[in-house]
Amino acid sequence: MPVGAIDDARVLAEVVGLVAGIRETSPGVFSVRIALAVETTGGEIGQLVNMLFGNSSIHDDLNLEDVELPDELLSAFPGPGHGLAGLRQDVGASGRALTGSALKPQGLPARSLGELAERLARGGLDAIKDDHGLADQRAAPFADRVAACAEAVARANAATGGGTLYWPSLSGDLDRLRRQVETAQAAGIIAVLVAPMILGLPTVAALVRDYPRMRFMAHPAMAGAARIAPPLLLGKLFRLIGADATVFPNHGGRFGYSRETCLALAAAALGPWGGLKPCVPVAAGGMTLDRVPEMLEFYGSDVMLLIGGGLLAARERLTAETARFVEAVSRHA
Amino acid sequence: MPVGAIDDARVLAEVVGLVAGIRETSPGVFSVRIALAVETTGGEIGQLVNMLFGNSSIHDDLNLEDVELPDELLSAFPGPGHGLAGLRQDVGASGRALTGSALKPQGLPARSLGELAERLARGGLDAIKDDHGLADQRAAPFADRVAACAEAVARANAATGGGTLYWPSLSGDLDRLRRQVETAQAAGIIAVLVAPMILGLPTVAALVRDYPRMRFMAHPAMAGAARIAPPLLLGKLFRLIGADATVFPNHGGRFGYSRETCLALAAAALGPWGGLKPCVPVAAGGMTLDRVPEMLEFYGSDVMLLIGGGLLAARERLTAETARFVEAVSRHA
Repeated sequence: MPVGAIDDARVLAEVVGLVAGIRETSPGVFSVRIALAVETTGGEIGQLVNMLFGNSSIHDDLNLEDVELPDELLSAFPGPGHGLAGLRQDVGASGRALTGSALKPQGLPARSLGELAERLARGGLDAIKDDHGLADQRAAPFADRVAACAEAVARANAATGGGTLYWPSLSGDLDRLRRQVETAQAAGIIAVLVAPMILGLPTVAALVRDYPRMRFMAHPAMAGAARIAPPLLLGKLFRLIGADATVFPNHGGRFGYSRETCLALAAAALGPWGGLKPCVPVAAGGMTLDRVPEMLEFYGSDVMLLIGGGLLAARERLTAETARFVEAVSRHA
Repeated sequence: MPVGAIDDARVLAEVVGLVAGIRETSPGVFSVRIALAVETTGGEIGQLVNMLFGNSSIHDDLNLEDVELPDELLSAFPGPGHGLAGLRQDVGASGRALTGSALKPQGLPARSLGELAERLARGGLDAIKDDHGLADQRAAPFADRVAACAEAVARANAATGGGTLYWPSLSGDLDRLRRQVETAQAAGIIAVLVAPMILGLPTVAALVRDYPRMRFMAHPAMAGAARIAPPLLLGKLFRLIGADATVFPNHGGRFGYSRETCLALAAAALGPWGGLKPCVPVAAGGMTLDRVPEMLEFYGSDVMLLIGGGLLAARERLTAETARFVEAVSRHA
C-alpha cells in the first residue's frame, strides 16, 4: 500500500509498519528490523505469519530471520500442552536424551508395520513415529495401521515393562484430522505427528486446541524451502502453536542445515519464552548409531535423537540394534 | 529410507521411486525426472505435495520444477468449479481481460472500507478483493467488513447496472473459514479470496468441496519463498485444488518474477489439463494504469489485471481513475 494513498490518521499513526533499524551485516546485505502493529495479526497464527512473511516471501532476496512477540500477543497462543517435561514423564526418562525411530517404508501392509513397530519397541525406544510419508494410502489405511501399531507397541511395552509411545502421522483437512485423532485415541494413542506447513498452521493450532490431552510432534515437510530461518519456523513458530516436539534435520546428515542452525533451533524450541513450555528438539535425518555420542555432546540431554533408516537397515537384528541405540543414550547420561 | 533396508518384494517392485532420467541443463545443474507411485499420494492434495517436495524442500539446492499427473490421479481432484468461463459469465465480460482492485489498508473501519469499495465499484471493475492482509482484526471484523462492502458494492452495481463481484479474504482454521463463507453467503457474496499456503492446501480443498457454488481466488502469500516453480505451485497446484483465479506478482512490479515465469504461470493456469476448467491468472503487485496496454499485449485477454495501490493513490479521484482503468481494458479488446 503506498503510504501516500492512506488518509486515515489513526492508520498512519497506529497501524502502518515502521522500520525500526537497518544494519549492514556484510557488504550489500542488510539486517532490517520492522515493527508491526499487534492488531494487524488478529491474534491468529495464519494472519501472524501472513504479516511476518506473506508477500515478503515472494521477494527472493529476503529472508525472515526472527520475530519478537510482545507479551500481549504471545499470551494469545497456547504453546506446547505437554512439552519437554510432559514427554519425559510419559516415558519415564529423566536426565537423559530421548530416543526415537520411524516406521517405513510406504507400501507395507499395516500388519508388517505393526511387526516393525513391535521389534523397535522391544529395543526400548521412547518414541516410534510413523514416517511422515505414511498417510491414508490403500496399502496401510490410517485406521488399520494405527490399530496394528498401537497393539504391537502395547504388547512390547507389556513384555518389557517399557513405555514406548507410538506417534501416528496425520493427514488431510481438519475434519479428517479429527477423525484420525479420535481413531487414534480409541486405540489408546496419546501422541501424533503433524506437518504444519502442509496441513496449515491454523489447522494444527485448531487440533492442539481441540485435543489438549494429545502430544503433538511437528514435522518439517514443506517447511525447509521457505526463506524463513529454521530456528524461527521449526523452533519458535511450531512451538507457538503447540508442538510438544519438533523434528529437524541434524547437521552432517543428508540435509544441509549447519551446526549453528541446529543449535539455534534447539535453543529456540527449549529456551524461556513467556509462559510457554519447552518443546523437544528432535534431531533426525540420515542419523546413524555411531553418531550418538557426538550428538549428545552437541545437544546435551534435552533432545530426542531419532534414527530411522539407520536402524531399519539392521533388518533381522532390528531389536538388538535398537537396544544398542537406547543403551548408548542411557550410558551417556 | 535406505533401499537396502526394504525386504518387501511388492514395495521394491511397485512403490519405491524411480529415477526416470537425468539431464545436465548447465554445467553442474541437473534436471532429474522421478517417477513416484500414484498409491503413495492417497489421492489427497497434502500427501501429494508431501510426496513431491516434503523432505526435498529441506535441500537448499533442489527446486521442484513441474509434475505430470496420470489421469488416474488427476481425476481425483476437482479443479476450478467455475474457472475462466464462469467468471466471465458472472461479470458479463467476453472478449476482453478482466479488471480488479484491492481494498486496503488494514486498520480502516468497516465503514471506510465499504466506502472505498463503493467508489471502486462505481468505476466499473469486475472484481474487488480484500487485501489479503484483511483478516478478522478488531478494526474491521470479518462480519462487519463483509456486510459493509457487500452492501456498498450492491449499491454501486444497482446504480451503474454493473456486475462487480466483491471477494472477501478468509482466514483461520476450517471451522472459522466455514463460518466466514456462510457469513459471506448470507450477505449475497459468491466469491472469496484464500491463501492456500497459509491455510493449508487440504483446507482450501475442503472448502472448495463444501461450497461448490462459491468462486475461489488463490493468493500467493507465503508461497513465493518455496523452491517450487511458481507456474507449478500457483498455476497447476492451486488450480488442481479448485482455484477459479490465481493471483501472482506481475513482472516489472515490486516483485522479482521474470516475464518467462509469468507467461508460464498463466499458461499453466489456463492450458488444457485433463478435464479441469481453466483458472484465471490474476496479474498484480505494484501495477499501474500506464502499464495496461503492455500487460494486455503480453497476456492477451484471458487474464485479470489487478491494480490496487495504484488506484487508491488517486484518493478523491478514485472512481474516475478506476473508470479509466476499466475503459483502457475495454478499449484494448
